[in-house]
Amino acid sequence: MTTLVFLDPQHPAGRLADPAAPAIMATDQGLTRGDGIFESLLAVKGAPRKLGAHLARLAASAELMDLTIPDAGAWQAAILHALAATPESQDRQCTVRLTATRGPEGAHRATAWVAVSTVSPALAAQREKGLDVMLLERGYDSDIAARAPWLLLGAKTLSYAVNMAALRHAHSEGADDVIFTSRDGLVLEGPTSSVLLAHISDDSGDPVKRLITPHLDTGILPGTTQGALFAAARDAGWELGYGPVTPEDLLDADAAWLISSIRLLAPINTIDGHSVGTAGIRQVLTAELSALLAQTL
Amino acid sequence: MTTLVFLDPQHPAGRLADPAAPAIMATDQGLTRGDGIFESLLAVKGAPRKLGAHLARLAASAELMDLTIPDAGAWQAAILHALAATPESQDRQCTVRLTATRGPEGAHRATAWVAVSTVSPALAAQREKGLDVMLLERGYDSDIAARAPWLLLGAKTLSYAVNMAALRHAHSEGADDVIFTSRDGLVLEGPTSSVLLAHISDDSGDPVKRLITPHLDTGILPGTTQGALFAAARDAGWELGYGPVTPEDLLDADAAWLISSIRLLAPINTIDGHSVGTAGIRQVLTAELSALLAQTL
Repeated sequence: MTTLVFLDPQHPAGRLADPAAPAIMATDQGLTRGDGIFESLLAVKGAPRKLGAHLARLAASAELMDLTIPDAGAWQAAILHALAATPESQDRQCTVRLTATRGPEGAHRATAWVAVSTVSPALAAQREKGLDVMLLERGYDSDIAARAPWLLLGAKTLSYAVNMAALRHAHSEGADDVIFTSRDGLVLEGPTSSVLLAHISDDSGDPVKRLITPHLDTGILPGTTQGALFAAARDAGWELGYGPVTPEDLLDADAAWLISSIRLLAPINTIDGHSVGTAGIRQVLTAELSALLAQTL
Repeated sequence: MTTLVFLDPQHPAGRLADPAAPAIMATDQGLTRGDGIFESLLAVKGAPRKLGAHLARLAASAELMDLTIPDAGAWQAAILHALAATPESQDRQCTVRLTATRGPEGAHRATAWVAVSTVSPALAAQREKGLDVMLLERGYDSDIAARAPWLLLGAKTLSYAVNMAALRHAHSEGADDVIFTSRDGLVLEGPTSSVLLAHISDDSGDPVKRLITPHLDTGILPGTTQGALFAAARDAGWELGYGPVTPEDLLDADAAWLISSIRLLAPINTIDGHSVGTAGIRQVLTAELSALLAQTL
């Protein structure tokens, strides 16, 4: 079940709505044009995680879309209201989805709401089982984001049809997930995740652990969970690196992951059928990094 | 005002809904993921135009999206129901929008509806005034559509955030509309229209009139209005051509247009500030082609 709370100037703490009833106008531009933005964040024991990072990214998406949305205080109030109205959130991890659309045609006001639901066991299981991933071309050059802001490459918009089609394509080919590559051959991101890889070198006898993610200049979304993990890993002595990352870099890694707010750190078992690292190292590094990430939750 | 009719197995002629009330679930994947398709068609004197072409393109979009939608008969019944419930449609041109989404998460059934509203005078005025257009990069190579079907380039999806952002960008630069170009420098289409250009040559004393549009292989939507006009123009003695079309071709044309189902044939006055043809020829050719197009309505 979903708990729904709409942001509403008449209701400072948000307005609880019946999740079994229609709640959105058929003319809402979020629906008719995919003209809106969203964030998905995790709630643990009824508390939202990385709230500041998600609200900051939501605001950045709104800016890129030239969309006026409610302020952080209104979001926070609605999120807490929705979690309080979801008793399961006390003992089950929940997804908290924030959505803001351009509203119905002619309304000149965003439609904004919070939806809370429990995390699906299938998604959580991928943290343990790992993923078979396929590389799919995203079609854009890695340097286009700055030059063509109308492509909205840094914004998390509701226009996710391509992301969903890429996942369907992967599933039809027997894969679990996708890593997009740029036209010029760089690793970008997953349809709903960031990409991470690790290199362990012990040339000097003292092992150096290095965690790498593609550079933001490539037009990918700034990953809030990647950001949290990087901060925790740095404090634990990891070196951090920012791409360019090539598919060969991924295959040469000691381990690689897709990381996102709800599924968290999901190890990549294979890419296009090729194993990434060994199961043993993957398991050790996943356990170490998951423990670091858990400290941030 | 909008008239709304939902396609509903329980109501063979469609179910009339209150357009002032919320009608869509907040969890509908058309809204949360832009995961759906649409068509916009014109109704004149209460009758839908090019219905077969629009229903065929809707079905083709559904196929590309792996989406099961109601059959043509159900759409036709709902369209006629919605027009009959819109008295203004008898004497004003109307937009008939067909939408089908993947439905609420877990529902496994498309949400499908018809919305009828009168054509905005501002849009209709562009047929007369013409357009100042700017070229914007779409980021894709012109040969990517066949190789990367997950990019959904031939499907008319609800994920139109980039199309809307491109139009906002143009408006902020003082332009009326956009023509997208491919990474490799070819003319593609407008955010909500097809591109047409005309060449008149009279080397032989007997003028040859040629109408050209970009080739579909470039990953553009097949234009239903471009298709109807091409058929009418061929019968009237025009030669027809299919691109590649370059920006230089557009600037060298005797006239060029953006053409779509609701706005119909809108002449392009300037592209990035450069005049296309002369006002006189533009006016003559627009009148001739508009008359041909009117025969098809």
